[in-house]
Amino acid sequence: MDHLYDPDVQHWLDIAGIFVFAISGALLAVRKNFDVFGIATLAAATGLGGGLFRDVVIGAVPPAAFTDLGYFVTPLIAAVFVFFLHPHVERINKAVNVFDAAGLGLFCVTGTIKAHEYGLGLPASAALGLATAAGGGVLRDVLANEVPSLLRWDREIYAVPAVVGASAVALLIHLGELNPLTMTLAAALGFVLRLLALTYGWRAPRAWRRHSTAADEG
Amino acid sequence: MDHLYDPDVQHWLDIAGIFVFAISGALLAVRKNFDVFGIATLAAATGLGGGLFRDVVIGAVPPAAFTDLGYFVTPLIAAVFVFFLHPHVERINKAVNVFDAAGLGLFCVTGTIKAHEYGLGLPASAALGLATAAGGGVLRDVLANEVPSLLRWDREIYAVPAVVGASAVALLIHLGELNPLTMTLAAALGFVLRLLALTYGWRAPRAWRRHSTAADEG
Amino acid sequence: MDHLYDPDVQHWLDIAGIFVFAISGALLAVRKNFDVFGIATLAAATGLGGGLFRDVVIGAVPPAAFTDLGYFVTPLIAAVFVFFLHPHVERINKAVNVFDAAGLGLFCVTGTIKAHEYGLGLPASAALGLATAAGGGVLRDVLANEVPSLLRWDREIYAVPAVVGASAVALLIHLGELNPLTMTLAAALGFVLRLLALTYGWRAPRAWRRHSTAADEG
Repeated sequence: MDHLYDPDVQHWLDIAGIFVFAISGALLAVRKNFDVFGIATLAAATGLGGGLFRDVVIGAVPPAAFTDLGYFVTPLIAAVFVFFLHPHVERINKAVNVFDAAGLGLFCVTGTIKAHEYGLGLPASAALGLATAAGGGVLRDVLANEVPSLLRWDREIYAVPAVVGASAVALLIHLGELNPLTMTLAAALGFVLRLLALTYGWRAPRAWRRHSTAADEG
Repeated sequence: MDHLYDPDVQHWLDIAGIFVFAISGALLAVRKNFDVFGIATLAAATGLGGGLFRDVVIGAVPPAAFTDLGYFVTPLIAAVFVFFLHPHVERINKAVNVFDAAGLGLFCVTGTIKAHEYGLGLPASAALGLATAAGGGVLRDVLANEVPSLLRWDREIYAVPAVVGASAVALLIHLGELNPLTMTLAAALGFVLRLLALTYGWRAPRAWRRHSTAADEG
Repeated sequence: MDHLYDPDVQHWLDIAGIFVFAISGALLAVRKNFDVFGIATLAAATGLGGGLFRDVVIGAVPPAAFTDLGYFVTPLIAAVFVFFLHPHVERINKAVNVFDAAGLGLFCVTGTIKAHEYGLGLPASAALGLATAAGGGVLRDVLANEVPSLLRWDREIYAVPAVVGASAVALLIHLGELNPLTMTLAAALGFVLRLLALTYGWRAPRAWRRHSTAADEG
């Protein structure tokens, strides 16, 4: 997508991010009792949805998801993997969370950079970085007919690490300091914040006095 | 978007429409018990979703939602507003309905005009006017895992006022009579029809003999 | 869309496909107890959603759904039809299934060809053929707040016939053997496979050992 890293390195990092996101989609499909095509569809939607949304919005069509065979095949491999090994994958759920956090850190960085390369301003680019990182998961939950976990207060925060990572990249671009090292640090920032949120159960507040002024309907 | 009004006036009207739609999204997020990021996300999706859909469909990318900082910040202000003041905002729900009706009237007009400026025929432009006015609310309800209130028979009609306003604009364009005055009248037509629907509880019929030939599953 | 058939023939086949898909959307709207505008909206989303997604992804904007008045009016006719005649349409549900299967066969072929004409590679083109055939139904189910029947294991397979038809077209393009005859055979292949799946209740497997290792939550 961008060429600050060696293109080959960048490409493999993208593939890794797509793969771990696709795993989370395939696992939800198994939990929802979908058939093998449902598993593959949800894996593809989760792995590619965020980047697809970004590319359609910035006018980068056809999107990378449809022009790079590697991006395209990766979710199918994730689906096959989960299809045969899902009890083991479930057992290593913690590892999946770590990989998903890595995907978040990576995608909020590459999403922000690509949006800026297509001429968007820095705040809008950071917003698309967030959308790239979180969009696949939202699409996964909507297709599975669940409330997106991005929106639920009873899940560890996901948007904040992505916003922080994306904003860090926007700041680096503004300062003219974007290079492979600082980019990696921004991705690491999003990654570590997400891991900390998972480890310590960080949650975001609901509306001011929400808990005391009204009964829960959630 | 269009320049029939003074661009500044137009811009502030757009901002006002985005703000009131975003308020309705933020309020639903509070009712669904989402956290503060869920509130901001749903506010942004509701305020910007209709215009985003229109712009992607007509090829106006990147969409206005991502190129104008004002459009972008407005839903966040609405989210902060609801976060702190939601018991009061709920109490003034009637006022929100009035503002939402104003947003409907405005967006069905500006959506139709923008689609026509991008070369679409008049019926398709009117359809995109409807999509601009109603799209944000549909996205809001889908993300919140609810049946879109646009589709439900037990809610006051929403599509009709938007269709009437958008069709009036299409007719005005056809007659060569579109100007700030007639445009304002078309927006007022959508606005007043929606207010009347709310006041008198106007609902649309279900399928012919639906109520007598089958049990409700809705 | 493409011109391998006589354009007029192609156009009427497209209209027929949109019509039968729209019928399935309108019938679901009646079952969900939506009002007349909900019926029309769901009919339009089902009939046009798959092609709309394809056109936005490949950059063919504005999409055919908004530039061809026939494509645009067809779902409304389907909605009126179901509005007045739905008990009869329900009774002839089997006929609807046959038409829907015909729509599937047709759309997976035309979707693949159009994507390839816009420069996508053959695997990506076949994926968009599948998306064209299945996308409208997924949008229908998401808007109706149901789990997409495409994903559910307890429904007859839908993706496989579409994938087979789309892949057959991709193979024909690769071999330089795409012509009206082979194209028709590919569409017939998707059509017949879907009919066989319906007739014999073909279902796809769930995840390996899914049925024995975990309780159903679906």
